[in-house]
Amino acid sequence: MNSNFSSDQNSVQYVIGDQAIKQAARYLNHYHSIFILIDENTEKYCLNILEKNVPDLKVNGYIKVPSGESEKNLERAAFIWKKLTTMDAKRDSLLINLGGGVITDMGGFCAGTFKRGIDFINIPTTLLAQVDAAIGAKTGINFMNIKNQIGLFYDPKAVIVDPVFLRTLDQKYWQSGFAEIIKYALIMDRELWKMLNMRNYSEIDDWDKIISRSAKDKIDIVRYDKMEKGIRKNLNFGHTIGLAFESLFLKRNIKITHGQAIAAGMICETWISSKMTELECTNVEEIIKMIDVNFDRLELSEKDVPEIMSIMKQDKKIRDGLFRFSLLRRLGKAVHDIVVEPELVEQSLSFYINRKNCN
Amino acid sequence: MNSNFSSDQNSVQYVIGDQAIKQAARYLNHYHSIFILIDENTEKYCLNILEKNVPDLKVNGYIKVPSGESEKNLERAAFIWKKLTTMDAKRDSLLINLGGGVITDMGGFCAGTFKRGIDFINIPTTLLAQVDAAIGAKTGINFMNIKNQIGLFYDPKAVIVDPVFLRTLDQKYWQSGFAEIIKYALIMDRELWKMLNMRNYSEIDDWDKIISRSAKDKIDIVRYDKMEKGIRKNLNFGHTIGLAFESLFLKRNIKITHGQAIAAGMICETWISSKMTELECTNVEEIIKMIDVNFDRLELSEKDVPEIMSIMKQDKKIRDGLFRFSLLRRLGKAVHDIVVEPELVEQSLSFYINRKNCN
Repeated sequence: MNSNFSSDQNSVQYVIGDQAIKQAARYLNHYHSIFILIDENTEKYCLNILEKNVPDLKVNGYIKVPSGESEKNLERAAFIWKKLTTMDAKRDSLLINLGGGVITDMGGFCAGTFKRGIDFINIPTTLLAQVDAAIGAKTGINFMNIKNQIGLFYDPKAVIVDPVFLRTLDQKYWQSGFAEIIKYALIMDRELWKMLNMRNYSEIDDWDKIISRSAKDKIDIVRYDKMEKGIRKNLNFGHTIGLAFESLFLKRNIKITHGQAIAAGMICETWISSKMTELECTNVEEIIKMIDVNFDRLELSEKDVPEIMSIMKQDKKIRDGLFRFSLLRRLGKAVHDIVVEPELVEQSLSFYINRKNCN
Repeated sequence: MNSNFSSDQNSVQYVIGDQAIKQAARYLNHYHSIFILIDENTEKYCLNILEKNVPDLKVNGYIKVPSGESEKNLERAAFIWKKLTTMDAKRDSLLINLGGGVITDMGGFCAGTFKRGIDFINIPTTLLAQVDAAIGAKTGINFMNIKNQIGLFYDPKAVIVDPVFLRTLDQKYWQSGFAEIIKYALIMDRELWKMLNMRNYSEIDDWDKIISRSAKDKIDIVRYDKMEKGIRKNLNFGHTIGLAFESLFLKRNIKITHGQAIAAGMICETWISSKMTELECTNVEEIIKMIDVNFDRLELSEKDVPEIMSIMKQDKKIRDGLFRFSLLRRLGKAVHDIVVEPELVEQSLSFYINRKNCN
């Protein structure tokens, strides 16, 4: 397929596209031992795909954790460290993370801190992980109900993105990853926006092209600014408010996907963009229409606003006590570090909850 | 004092020597908030010294943990993360580690992983931390009775080494740090060996010179090889076996200091050097005499040998399943990555336990 490519940047190897998995063998040599982190889903649906396509793979042990965002916690991380220890992993062992964002985030964190850092490879198996979580060195676990409160920047040796793993994926996982794809279109890739063409994700038949394009957008940004000093902050569009939604529902034990939360956050932050960075109201309406075509609104009311504001104050992106947003200047162009008054954030929540018009 | 100096390398600032603490204020600007990690000893003896010498220091919160190597664990790390969270620490907050190696190791680990990394400063208050633990980016906690099993390489913004903090120090802490000083002399600094002059640590009256020289030796090594790809491995002299001793006694709940363990490890590895790297037996006898002048032998018997060997196999420095030692070529010169057969390691333990002669 045309979208297949591999690249080397800062020693992270990316292999993306159809049949990418067949190239995994290249990155598995010279290790003392190899361990695979899985959950019950990837054990069932993905492990056989990996082992069939990489017949020489010698696995010294499997580490299985339950799936789900609520499992991305310190207890599970300790379990992974413990398994690595008892299975005699060394500094020159390799951990393969086979799964979605929970697996790649938590596995990366555990690899990055086990014996002060062992190598790991991400093989993302969900749309969200393929276009986002598995790329870019951010690892972590949730702590005290705060997303990724504990973690580190730690590069995988390789990231292998192969759509073959998505075949068995449940609809909600497609939807969840789709929010980040919309985000890439909005912040940096007008061409991608045209490809999406106001479609609902279930109508899309050219996933391979869309996934490759999105993954490359993320790689491009991370290449220039891994440590998030500047342009990488643009990726936070929709996330300052979106992650607060996600934390809120996590605390309330109501399951929503990351994509649902970010989609909602993007609506709020698109509206803020019209107030702060001159995004035109016609664009606001167009963007919100595309999001609403793909995502139901979250069940929120005005009563939830104070709690959401309080969660946002815990955000890692807050500096000097001020809210700094990544916002849209226009469709396909984001800017970062825009200071936004809390009142405007509250108004954006009200805009979202009450389905107001842009003006 | 002549030994006072400050240097900049890879953005870590070192201020070492008499009155160094007065320069701490320089590194405390532009932070959203400042937190200090202490234990009950540094709260009692060191906090007032810090606050008296840095009158402008504004502290937003204290995090107090119990002292002791056995406290350098995941539960305490979680406690520190929790305190940072509840005291509203941000990405642009600063953590000051005021204490010995437990505080600087664990505080560095918590800072390096909180919100994917916040700044920290080490103000070591024990001899061991001043000449070793606080310098060189290695952070970590113990896990499953294995020393520093979980951690990361993460640079402090500054390390401030001031002998003023040592005044209140108990004798055993002087002794503990002294083992590392002997090590620097043996692996790289024959001039320092002459300064030590076969003295017992209690007879030493020129500490400031000796501390500055030792700290600079460590800084020099870390400057060239922070990630321990080559020359930094020389610092492991005495540690491959010494850390196994330390783990053994930790498991048995018998308190020994890090220095006692390393001193014992150095005797074993000095003997191995005579077999593997041509260290002369006259040097072996001289080195062991100096160590025995300063450290009682550990209570070990031949029966302990299998357990020690088993602990060593968990060591982070083991690669490809082989023991690789840093050994002495001669007094003042070490070499690393020397493969040593397990049998020779066992013989060195027997050499130590039975106080055999070099030949």
